[in-house]
Amino acid sequence: MSSGKATEFELIARIRARLTDPDPALLVGVGDDAAVFLPSSGLAQVATTDSLVADRHFHVDWPAADVGHLALAANLSDLAAMGASPRWALLSLTLPEADSDWLDAFLDGFLGLAEASGTHLIGGNLAAGPLNLGVQLIGEVEPDRITRRHGARLGDRVLVTGTLGDAAAALRLGDRAGDHLQQRLRRPQPRLAAGRILAGRVSCMIDISDGLLADLAHLLPEHLGAELELSSLPASAALSQAMPEDDERWRLQLAGGNDYELLLTAAAEHVPELVQALGETGLGLTEIGRIVDREGIECTRPDGSLFKSTRSGWDHFGN
Amino acid sequence: MSSGKATEFELIARIRARLTDPDPALLVGVGDDAAVFLPSSGLAQVATTDSLVADRHFHVDWPAADVGHLALAANLSDLAAMGASPRWALLSLTLPEADSDWLDAFLDGFLGLAEASGTHLIGGNLAAGPLNLGVQLIGEVEPDRITRRHGARLGDRVLVTGTLGDAAAALRLGDRAGDHLQQRLRRPQPRLAAGRILAGRVSCMIDISDGLLADLAHLLPEHLGAELELSSLPASAALSQAMPEDDERWRLQLAGGNDYELLLTAAAEHVPELVQALGETGLGLTEIGRIVDREGIECTRPDGSLFKSTRSGWDHFGN
Repeated sequence: MSSGKATEFELIARIRARLTDPDPALLVGVGDDAAVFLPSSGLAQVATTDSLVADRHFHVDWPAADVGHLALAANLSDLAAMGASPRWALLSLTLPEADSDWLDAFLDGFLGLAEASGTHLIGGNLAAGPLNLGVQLIGEVEPDRITRRHGARLGDRVLVTGTLGDAAAALRLGDRAGDHLQQRLRRPQPRLAAGRILAGRVSCMIDISDGLLADLAHLLPEHLGAELELSSLPASAALSQAMPEDDERWRLQLAGGNDYELLLTAAAEHVPELVQALGETGLGLTEIGRIVDREGIECTRPDGSLFKSTRSGWDHFGN
Repeated sequence: MSSGKATEFELIARIRARLTDPDPALLVGVGDDAAVFLPSSGLAQVATTDSLVADRHFHVDWPAADVGHLALAANLSDLAAMGASPRWALLSLTLPEADSDWLDAFLDGFLGLAEASGTHLIGGNLAAGPLNLGVQLIGEVEPDRITRRHGARLGDRVLVTGTLGDAAAALRLGDRAGDHLQQRLRRPQPRLAAGRILAGRVSCMIDISDGLLADLAHLLPEHLGAELELSSLPASAALSQAMPEDDERWRLQLAGGNDYELLLTAAAEHVPELVQALGETGLGLTEIGRIVDREGIECTRPDGSLFKSTRSGWDHFGN
């Protein structure tokens, strides 16, 4: 069968046929009741899961390869935020029909990013039902480099990798968004190398999926808050060209989400070395504010006035 | 909030509030970008995932606690078939609405079985969308006890734990099915202790989720087949009382699925010691046939006539 309708077992066979990269630590791969692997000596195991739901996290008319890339990228981004390196992936696909063309294209995106990131697909599950794309990842990290969400201290600087707002602008502008913005929405590049460099050298770290303000709120210790300078928010050339630097753009950068950049805090004296270390990999690291002893997040415009954000991020149930 | 609609973060807080059993090997649990744990020295890690889809794997009007139990049981059964012990679980819930009553009841069933089986919930994901309940499990096994699907040899005996057909009879009989059959459908007991006893002592093993014939087919080496004696198929007292021993009942036992028993092959000389070892735990182990040098699976009635099964198990896409 090369296309069209297939049975569950034909789909599984198609997936297995594309797994060509054996790993000596993998004792049992796709096709048994469970996958079995040997963990690396001395390393902690890092596990995460994330699901994409049609019309919530992607549009059903997107190319399936983009959906496959995004499903893995969202999970890799969580490992990056822990300072971990990915090793193994499981894939739980719930599909309305056994469409082998769609699956092949989905795998193009998924396995392309898997190979680029050193991730091996070792198992999963296929079921019939409303489209739901679940990915589970297992990675590894040195116990002394685990980087958590808590640990920010008064006076720490707030920093972010890359640029903010591209994906949200792509959603806002629709067909008027150019290629760069669309790529940032559909093909985000998880910041794995940056996460490895920053791990153990910053006070806390998270990846930005729900939006800068919502994810920064997860980093704030009780009774502490943050001040952000809107003029410091890093913007891509494409975003700067597409939208003027005004409240509408700041709102996308603060609360739009889907950035998949790393957000972190670090002591001020460590900032220069961190910026330099990341710069050597070609990725920007920008100081956007600092931790203060007043609860909440205060955003200041270039003219010194305070910016009120109308939403602080995504509640997935729309409350 | 004690009931009704909640936000995503309130639901996550409800889950966290119920996790009270710390494990020293767990370095980072629910509430960070990923969970982090230390694997046990010298053991291989075993990973599996399975999803329940409404009206495919359960009825939406089932008590949520039964759904929670079943979601974990189906995954534990996969670990049992590898001879592994469960350690860690992730939970990917896609829910149509943030119904905290439903979630609480779901967790009653899920966490009840988790505690009984030594499984710790360490992370997961919540999304809004059509109901989809994904579970990912990580367990551990000694590398020399990993028990796979392949390895059956000519002349091996085919054996099954417990009894077959109860869950399928519960589906068939509906309201006429008694408590025992309903419990076997909604609250299957994964055969973890049996899997540990059998691991490394049998030639291959699988759990029966899709039906005896479909899952036995996964165990057959190329060019070999199996002969089954229908009179040997183990039936519970409840099934025997509900249905006479005839083609209809055999069909349920052969192809109904949802048994979550272990199916295995072993050399004839090892059968008595395996039956005795399992008997000491109170679980039956029944010889139902043997591996022969003729392809396919042949089922013989007590009168010596051949039984033709109209379906060999489930294709989840209904092809």
